Amino acid sequence: MIIIMQTDAKPDEVQSVEEEIRRIGFRPFINPGVERKVIAVLGGLDAKKADLVEHFYSFPGVERVDLISHLWKLASREYHPADTVIDISGVKIGGNRIAVAAGPCSIESEAQIVEIAHSVKASGAHMLRGGAFKPRTSPYAFQGLGEEGLKFLVKAREETGLPVVTEVMDTGDVDLISKYADVLQIGARNMQNYSLLKRVGATTHPILLKRGPGCKLRDLLMSAEYIIAEGNCNVILCERGITTFEDSTRNTTDINAVPVLKHWTHLPVVMDPSHATGDWRYVESVSKASIASGADGLLLEVHNDPKRALSDGPQSLRPEKFDALMKQLARVAQAVDRVM
Amino acid sequence: MIIIMQTDAKPDEVQSVEEEIRRIGFRPFINPGVERKVIAVLGGLDAKKADLVEHFYSFPGVERVDLISHLWKLASREYHPADTVIDISGVKIGGNRIAVAAGPCSIESEAQIVEIAHSVKASGAHMLRGGAFKPRTSPYAFQGLGEEGLKFLVKAREETGLPVVTEVMDTGDVDLISKYADVLQIGARNMQNYSLLKRVGATTHPILLKRGPGCKLRDLLMSAEYIIAEGNCNVILCERGITTFEDSTRNTTDINAVPVLKHWTHLPVVMDPSHATGDWRYVESVSKASIASGADGLLLEVHNDPKRALSDGPQSLRPEKFDALMKQLARVAQAVDRVM
Amino acid sequence: MIIIMQTDAKPDEVQSVEEEIRRIGFRPFINPGVERKVIAVLGGLDAKKADLVEHFYSFPGVERVDLISHLWKLASREYHPADTVIDISGVKIGGNRIAVAAGPCSIESEAQIVEIAHSVKASGAHMLRGGAFKPRTSPYAFQGLGEEGLKFLVKAREETGLPVVTEVMDTGDVDLISKYADVLQIGARNMQNYSLLKRVGATTHPILLKRGPGCKLRDLLMSAEYIIAEGNCNVILCERGITTFEDSTRNTTDINAVPVLKHWTHLPVVMDPSHATGDWRYVESVSKASIASGADGLLLEVHNDPKRALSDGPQSLRPEKFDALMKQLARVAQAVDRVM
Amino acid sequence: MIIIMQTDAKPDEVQSVEEEIRRIGFRPFINPGVERKVIAVLGGLDAKKADLVEHFYSFPGVERVDLISHLWKLASREYHPADTVIDISGVKIGGNRIAVAAGPCSIESEAQIVEIAHSVKASGAHMLRGGAFKPRTSPYAFQGLGEEGLKFLVKAREETGLPVVTEVMDTGDVDLISKYADVLQIGARNMQNYSLLKRVGATTHPILLKRGPGCKLRDLLMSAEYIIAEGNCNVILCERGITTFEDSTRNTTDINAVPVLKHWTHLPVVMDPSHATGDWRYVESVSKASIASGADGLLLEVHNDPKRALSDGPQSLRPEKFDALMKQLARVAQAVDRVM
Repeated sequence: MIIIMQTDAKPDEVQSVEEEIRRIGFRPFINPGVERKVIAVLGGLDAKKADLVEHFYSFPGVERVDLISHLWKLASREYHPADTVIDISGVKIGGNRIAVAAGPCSIESEAQIVEIAHSVKASGAHMLRGGAFKPRTSPYAFQGLGEEGLKFLVKAREETGLPVVTEVMDTGDVDLISKYADVLQIGARNMQNYSLLKRVGATTHPILLKRGPGCKLRDLLMSAEYIIAEGNCNVILCERGITTFEDSTRNTTDINAVPVLKHWTHLPVVMDPSHATGDWRYVESVSKASIASGADGLLLEVHNDPKRALSDGPQSLRPEKFDALMKQLARVAQAVDRVM
Repeated sequence: MIIIMQTDAKPDEVQSVEEEIRRIGFRPFINPGVERKVIAVLGGLDAKKADLVEHFYSFPGVERVDLISHLWKLASREYHPADTVIDISGVKIGGNRIAVAAGPCSIESEAQIVEIAHSVKASGAHMLRGGAFKPRTSPYAFQGLGEEGLKFLVKAREETGLPVVTEVMDTGDVDLISKYADVLQIGARNMQNYSLLKRVGATTHPILLKRGPGCKLRDLLMSAEYIIAEGNCNVILCERGITTFEDSTRNTTDINAVPVLKHWTHLPVVMDPSHATGDWRYVESVSKASIASGADGLLLEVHNDPKRALSDGPQSLRPEKFDALMKQLARVAQAVDRVM
Repeated sequence: MIIIMQTDAKPDEVQSVEEEIRRIGFRPFINPGVERKVIAVLGGLDAKKADLVEHFYSFPGVERVDLISHLWKLASREYHPADTVIDISGVKIGGNRIAVAAGPCSIESEAQIVEIAHSVKASGAHMLRGGAFKPRTSPYAFQGLGEEGLKFLVKAREETGLPVVTEVMDTGDVDLISKYADVLQIGARNMQNYSLLKRVGATTHPILLKRGPGCKLRDLLMSAEYIIAEGNCNVILCERGITTFEDSTRNTTDINAVPVLKHWTHLPVVMDPSHATGDWRYVESVSKASIASGADGLLLEVHNDPKRALSDGPQSLRPEKFDALMKQLARVAQAVDRVM
Repeated sequence: MIIIMQTDAKPDEVQSVEEEIRRIGFRPFINPGVERKVIAVLGGLDAKKADLVEHFYSFPGVERVDLISHLWKLASREYHPADTVIDISGVKIGGNRIAVAAGPCSIESEAQIVEIAHSVKASGAHMLRGGAFKPRTSPYAFQGLGEEGLKFLVKAREETGLPVVTEVMDTGDVDLISKYADVLQIGARNMQNYSLLKRVGATTHPILLKRGPGCKLRDLLMSAEYIIAEGNCNVILCERGITTFEDSTRNTTDINAVPVLKHWTHLPVVMDPSHATGDWRYVESVSKASIASGADGLLLEVHNDPKRALSDGPQSLRPEKFDALMKQLARVAQAVDRVM
């Protein structure tokens, strides 16, 4: 059960609802939202809670009381039936328009990121992606340019106007990266790094939350709930392939995830066909499938020289392939009543 | 390496190629094809074989010599670069037109199958599917109507003109079912029932080969190879979901399978969103994705009374949902330059 | 619910129980057991059945009425609380003694199988395993010697006294193979080949049922139920590794399967570490683990010349390794109060 | 290739090796070890490196040059052929003695942890485990007592002498937890939290590194490599179950992991049967299997009142079950020439 207070509820009204929750044997959990307080009523049996909906409606300052059957509450479509549309420095995601974030896996130099930014912008991309802090399986692999890379990314934004998405790996880096990035990305390996989720939940930046390749969809939503419970509702969910026995592709794209997530949550859902296949030859097919399935956007790796890329070359599209793909995607979007 | 003999090659020409293969240390494998003999050269190193291509070209009766790098030979795109188009009593699959086979999981009565056949035909389906011999996980579950069901299926074909697809589970039933069916389906649980594969390989019926939910794509192609090696090239591959840790859907649709199979083989590839999701609410999304990804067709479960279906009710579409879906699919097909 | 009739129940007593089942809205399923009739009561709610236990006890000819909560009935430990001990031509499996079946993957010649039989017997093996009809992923791989191989196997039995285990792949081969083999093996790829399960269920041979690598334990028990429902209770379950994302071994040994199966069923459980790891270097470790976990026996591949084996060489132990392993296994068996 | 410098190598000697590496076209990676510098030679072909072993031996300050074929270098058995034995405040792990860490999932009160500590000590446990900072899937679940819990844990250590193992989730908490704990645990969800791995790699505490349930063994070793590359060689690897399609247990115990890891690395390997099964009824069987397979230790959840445990109750053993289990494990240990 969730009790949503009025935006102008007074502190003592909130407090008296909390006390009542404790008095009748449950635990209150306050979501420190910016606009309004939301109080989750935790513990005990769901059946017992059903009887309490009317009871709490009568408390001063209460706007709404909702029973939520899923483990995730604030992320659930029961709690918020309409699609959430997130504004990323002017780019909307979750609405009618499909949003595409394109760019290299790693920022390698100012020239590289600026050139790619101009190129993907010309092809119709809405955002620029690129990693400065890179989680690499090997400690001996290229670990990213760090803050210098962020400066190159900002330079590319200045030249093209594209909002930028970049990954944050450490609670200690959140403030630094927040100064440069429009969207903070939580990488797949950190999907259940709850310290980091709480920390980015305390920012007001949109968060791109990538699904861990061994994690269930319900766990993805619980991770989103961690962020929202801290007061940041701007969470974009990203399916990027799961680990299975099939070894012809790097990961298995879980296309079912799109309708399942759309059924369970109001948050926008994007797909990352580059990681989900690991092979640029399959990116076109899976990108089209993603849009047809109802995804709200795509993350696509584009590199001007994939063979020399410092990471993920085999799954990166060349700019001319990306350009051709964008034209095809616009047709698929139209066929499912969306625009690009 | 594969040596394709001319259609009019004489037995002693075939024999002398075989003898030469043995003489130089390899094993010949004769594919008893109807039209022409194909001899696979097995064993030894691939590198060594490369030198022998010209050698065998000079033998009388030889039409072509091909090096094939994959374990599957006759199924590979290297062997047959163009898409294979299969004719199912007038319905083409593998070409520009998307083919849809719709119908109930199980044939339950003449009235049921005839009614559904009329309904799916009116909505634009190209084939009728329905099981008379049902592989059920429980020995106590409805096992299908058997031959009586086949008669009802034929009745539905007579009334609508739709070719019919039905499953064969046992080598002993192949002759019987071949008399009634247009397409023989090998179910997912029998994908590696090699006795059955060889047996249907000896028919001239098109074969719908469903991927086992725990089987790799390379194993699916090896199973297709079993059928083709017996002389039946009319194999349609079907992805119907794989087993993974994700439990929000009955199976995980492996959408990557479409571009991977299209890259590896010339055979048509269809998708079964009903089994791949196990939930009718997700069938629309995954059907659109399938067509957008490049699949050549769909298998869809349609039932006029899903709640009372004797099997797979929860994943069956009602006729009116199917009708609406077909209209949407036509738009997606058009967006990827296909027709329905 | 299951109604077990007395061994001397008359046909009309059985019939009147069946009619009563139908009258009150359920479906009777008759298990055509050799010794006694068992009638499964199918359909409807479990809760409603609980009230009927006493009702059916009063019918003439009824010996026992059991509520069974699992989908599998005759295979469940609720139905048969004690461990089932199966007698294989004098070798007991499922009791205190650990049974080991050893031998090559494929029977390659009389000399080979006889030599290995003598060798594994000297090391303490209780049964000889070897394939004559081989399910191979590739149609071009060695498919086994067929009936000639069975004759070699029988020759090895005559010389050593070891009962022999061999695979049956086709309903049409059951009679032939039954003449030679002591145990009929259903291979992993055929675990859900229900026609074959029913056919071997109609024999009186012990059946070694291998788990499909993509199949859940509950599906394994349902496949056992198919065999038992035909009247053959002599089913030995075999875990041989499942498909997962982990690729350092051919399969992932599901060691949890041992205690789970022991909890759910009365049937003997054996492990096949050779297939479950795919690498002879790991067979020793997993064999010890299997016995410590409570498995009733092992299947082990032993070959006198693994590098030249026609199949599965990399996972086969040399005879001297097998001999050393058997001595170690005897110590582990003793540590868990078993003998070898 | 790895170049190990002498402990008294001078900075300019290290520098000249680095320069030479660059000059001939490779990238040097300096492991900032406490005792000695280790320089990994990265990039280029392995074949080319083989020729350089002798070349680098002649450089002043170089102690040893090793070719390492795996992606992990310092963690590999090629680099360090003997088993690594780690000393945890007097308890050895990785040697002949099996080490058992037992205790509750979460520290709930001083009384609880002290009582359990006395109990598991009496049964023969070597270490006490208990979580104060808990990574929970739900933000609304009990998140642990934090520093207060650590104080209770230390109290339990004072009373029993058992070294304590507890989890660290955040780079910001490493200093705090290091003050209290004998072993720092990296939880499964943080196995690829590279910031955290680097941070604990800079401590001198033994690290218990749990495998992520969706992560390959090679990725586990790469995560260990991150820690060792920072100079901390005291890494204990822990298998705790992986995600698969099998749903009868919470996770699937990957018992193959024990021999595979023992083959690949010199680091100690322990098993966590409580998480790997998720069900106390299966813990006994899998614990015995783990020791028989060659694991160096066990993590076991023990709770004095599992039904009221604030986390993981269903998989916790009662103290009397744990006591009985320890006696049985000692017998299995002896059967594989180990002691407890």
